[in-house]
Amino acid sequence: MSERTLRIPTFDIGPAVERLKVALGADAVETTEAEVSQFRDPFQHRSWRDFEPGAAVLPSTVEQVQAVLRIANECKVPVWTSGQGRNNGYGGAAPRVSGALVMSLRRLNRVLEVDEESATALIEPGVRFFDLYDHLRAAGSKLWMSVPDLGWGSVVGNTLDHGLGYSLTGDHIANQCGMEVVLANGDILRTGMGSMTNARAAHVYKRGCGPSADGLFMQSNYGVVTKMGVWLSPPPDCYMPGWLTLRKDSDLELLLEVLRPLMIDGTIPNQPMIINAVCAMSAFAGREDWYDGAGPMPEEIIEKIAAQPGFGRWVMRFALYGDEKIVERQREIVQDAFGRIPGAEVSFSKYDGRAMPELENPHERVQAGIPSMALDRMTRWYGGENGGHIGFSCAAPITGRDGAALRDLVRGELEAAGLDYSGVIIVSKRSMIHVGLVVFDTEDEAQASNAYAACRSMVRSAAKLGYGEYRSHLDFMDLVAEQYDFNDHAQRRFNERIKDALDPNGILSPGKQGIWPATYRA
Amino acid sequence: MSERTLRIPTFDIGPAVERLKVALGADAVETTEAEVSQFRDPFQHRSWRDFEPGAAVLPSTVEQVQAVLRIANECKVPVWTSGQGRNNGYGGAAPRVSGALVMSLRRLNRVLEVDEESATALIEPGVRFFDLYDHLRAAGSKLWMSVPDLGWGSVVGNTLDHGLGYSLTGDHIANQCGMEVVLANGDILRTGMGSMTNARAAHVYKRGCGPSADGLFMQSNYGVVTKMGVWLSPPPDCYMPGWLTLRKDSDLELLLEVLRPLMIDGTIPNQPMIINAVCAMSAFAGREDWYDGAGPMPEEIIEKIAAQPGFGRWVMRFALYGDEKIVERQREIVQDAFGRIPGAEVSFSKYDGRAMPELENPHERVQAGIPSMALDRMTRWYGGENGGHIGFSCAAPITGRDGAALRDLVRGELEAAGLDYSGVIIVSKRSMIHVGLVVFDTEDEAQASNAYAACRSMVRSAAKLGYGEYRSHLDFMDLVAEQYDFNDHAQRRFNERIKDALDPNGILSPGKQGIWPATYRA
Repeated sequence: MSERTLRIPTFDIGPAVERLKVALGADAVETTEAEVSQFRDPFQHRSWRDFEPGAAVLPSTVEQVQAVLRIANECKVPVWTSGQGRNNGYGGAAPRVSGALVMSLRRLNRVLEVDEESATALIEPGVRFFDLYDHLRAAGSKLWMSVPDLGWGSVVGNTLDHGLGYSLTGDHIANQCGMEVVLANGDILRTGMGSMTNARAAHVYKRGCGPSADGLFMQSNYGVVTKMGVWLSPPPDCYMPGWLTLRKDSDLELLLEVLRPLMIDGTIPNQPMIINAVCAMSAFAGREDWYDGAGPMPEEIIEKIAAQPGFGRWVMRFALYGDEKIVERQREIVQDAFGRIPGAEVSFSKYDGRAMPELENPHERVQAGIPSMALDRMTRWYGGENGGHIGFSCAAPITGRDGAALRDLVRGELEAAGLDYSGVIIVSKRSMIHVGLVVFDTEDEAQASNAYAACRSMVRSAAKLGYGEYRSHLDFMDLVAEQYDFNDHAQRRFNERIKDALDPNGILSPGKQGIWPATYRA
Repeated sequence: MSERTLRIPTFDIGPAVERLKVALGADAVETTEAEVSQFRDPFQHRSWRDFEPGAAVLPSTVEQVQAVLRIANECKVPVWTSGQGRNNGYGGAAPRVSGALVMSLRRLNRVLEVDEESATALIEPGVRFFDLYDHLRAAGSKLWMSVPDLGWGSVVGNTLDHGLGYSLTGDHIANQCGMEVVLANGDILRTGMGSMTNARAAHVYKRGCGPSADGLFMQSNYGVVTKMGVWLSPPPDCYMPGWLTLRKDSDLELLLEVLRPLMIDGTIPNQPMIINAVCAMSAFAGREDWYDGAGPMPEEIIEKIAAQPGFGRWVMRFALYGDEKIVERQREIVQDAFGRIPGAEVSFSKYDGRAMPELENPHERVQAGIPSMALDRMTRWYGGENGGHIGFSCAAPITGRDGAALRDLVRGELEAAGLDYSGVIIVSKRSMIHVGLVVFDTEDEAQASNAYAACRSMVRSAAKLGYGEYRSHLDFMDLVAEQYDFNDHAQRRFNERIKDALDPNGILSPGKQGIWPATYRA
């Protein structure tokens, strides 16, 4: 399988930067090393210089976004867009093409509407999970939302990058409804019913009359999303987070078999997260608290971690929501099912969802859609404050065979690279994402290099088994795209045909997800 | 609001037909009046000659689909594709451009896979709801599926046209996963994870890495879908269909207010259908059994129908599925909620979903995903065997205000046109579709003309109130597209830019949903 040759055109962002200062005001353009460095890949070793932002522009309005794209088209400079740029395990706000202008939408940060009747909100792309939560509480709304483990990211950005959360609306794409998009030529498109002026159903009905374009603007470089409808949920009478621990590593396979029917029939309605002992401990401690030897952590240390109270070789968080009698019955069903796994232990907490207390357990907060940063330390297993990670994330059916195959592949390759295996499985209704949370010390160049190399290697070995990444770090976006090879890469051909039609100058995020404009294809 | 001027190019399908006979075999091409007439709009008055198929081609394989498109490109003839072409209230299999070649995919009728573990199937576009059901039963599968009221249509075609069903997987688009598409240039695209050869997650994970194209191939003319993944559901322990009757016409508003929270929180997990007295009676009787006067049926006759046992001014079918104790608790919650509507009566049946008896009530069959044709007579209110209908179908939030606005608008305009108001509301999690089932006698030219004229008028008056159609009859596809007018029809501009990029010769279903190729735009 050969990778394509690319030809990055030469460009000079200087004239564009000057014009942007005039058009948007000098405070909307950042050019100093200190300012621009916040848009770097946060975990790249300091001696590397890949994916370097050239300058940053921060528009505050849709009209300013249009102005940025007009200037970029006229000056033929690439513009790499992000909401908050907190997609850290995948490269943060950094551009695929070094020297590109980074457009951060952080200042487009308004919650435009909350519809209490239909439980929806309309937001701009700079709105963080924290912001939406604060807005709801300040407005006296009781509505619940969904958050990923870290609350500092953009709700829109996370959704567009296929992100997931852990409450009832945790399938973020399924709970997105209606977009406003600025196209490369500056034209403003509204998708679905929102393309009718004053549409009543713009944020409750996911489609319009005709094709639906929303999926096109996710993980792509076809437009800049400036508004998005989000579905929320009414507070449940009863909120019951659960915690399951497994004794043996091989119990994972049995768990997945027991779990699959509970997911498909909706008995468990959120997105459970299954993590291994190393990952679970990383929420509370650094690696050095357990082991400071070189190479992967020995099995006996992992067993020691697994033996801690509330821990196991694998643990799963999940939650039930709704009418108390129904939730109690679901608890019985779930307990009965998990009882078929020898040594499994399951415990529950129970809260009134309409009068929530302060929750101490970060996993219980996340599954109640309460944003926090408590789980940030999971990525600091190695190196303390210098800890970093890459997400190596494959989609699979919810089966024991698939779980074992991905666990064994990722553990094997990481350990061969001298790294610990921190494993996370996020389970949806019919699929799961196995995330190898590839943790390393960003100050340790050799270890960081090993982590990147292991990821690149795993992309290929996973593809041989039929597993594709659902998201990818800048460093291996092209390699990932390469694996989607049916009919001699028909999907990439299709994606690039759309790209050329919508963005003939190739200004929008060239290289995003391996989609390159015509001018870059050798 | 002015409609666009279109310029239909002249074309001659004769040479293409001859080449198709050679390439596919003579039995795959139909040219006689008797053969071709089955692809006409089934309810058009016999003296009209709009939307006339020129000839029909019936490929049996993906390679034959490619051959058809190759010949159509070379001969520059339009090809109007359908699965079964049973979309009768919207024009059936008839092409928007008269004289076009109709490509029916009826012979691509294989169920390619059923995955019992993940509860999915992979099917071709000629597979009818009947076929998939028969396949599952013949294979000994217990899996349930979703069906619309009539079982003769294509599962793929219904999904692509935003169709709905009434069991747990009744949101057909939400339960579609992975497509194979032949593009206008003959290239074969697989969407999502299926674009990786031997992908494990092709039919369980709805996206790939990069943009998702599936929505583009729905209600559009961008490609020919030749395979589609469909989600099924395990049989519920308990199946409990319910039937609610309302005494007064104005109770609809209160019902929608009571229903909305039950839909959003999932207490009612299927897609309830609310129908008015005329529509409910049309399943069992013809209009002449109740009234044979001219003009709309008088209020006192409607009241008489509503007073029949099991009837009301409005009735709603809905269903609960799952663990018996949970279903029993849901029944209590639902009964309690509907108890707040004075005069409302609700009744339930209860079945073991794993050992289903033969169900006599067609509404109970539909909600169990069992295909039938029993409800076909609903469209024969006028004119007996000559009865026809047009669907006038708007999306709206689930509120009393929206329900009343659509009811009053549609009833008012239909009665002004001398027609009865047969009203259907299909309710989803956060939205509803109000279908004016515009019924008429296809042999009565004046009545049929009035029905068409009323629909055209309602498109405009609904748009003024902010309601757009979710689907439309051939006769007013352009008018509907015209209403999606935000930013001077940015969505149509976008749709046609994609069209021109994917189908430069404009061969695929020109005019579908108001999307015209460059060669047709004056």
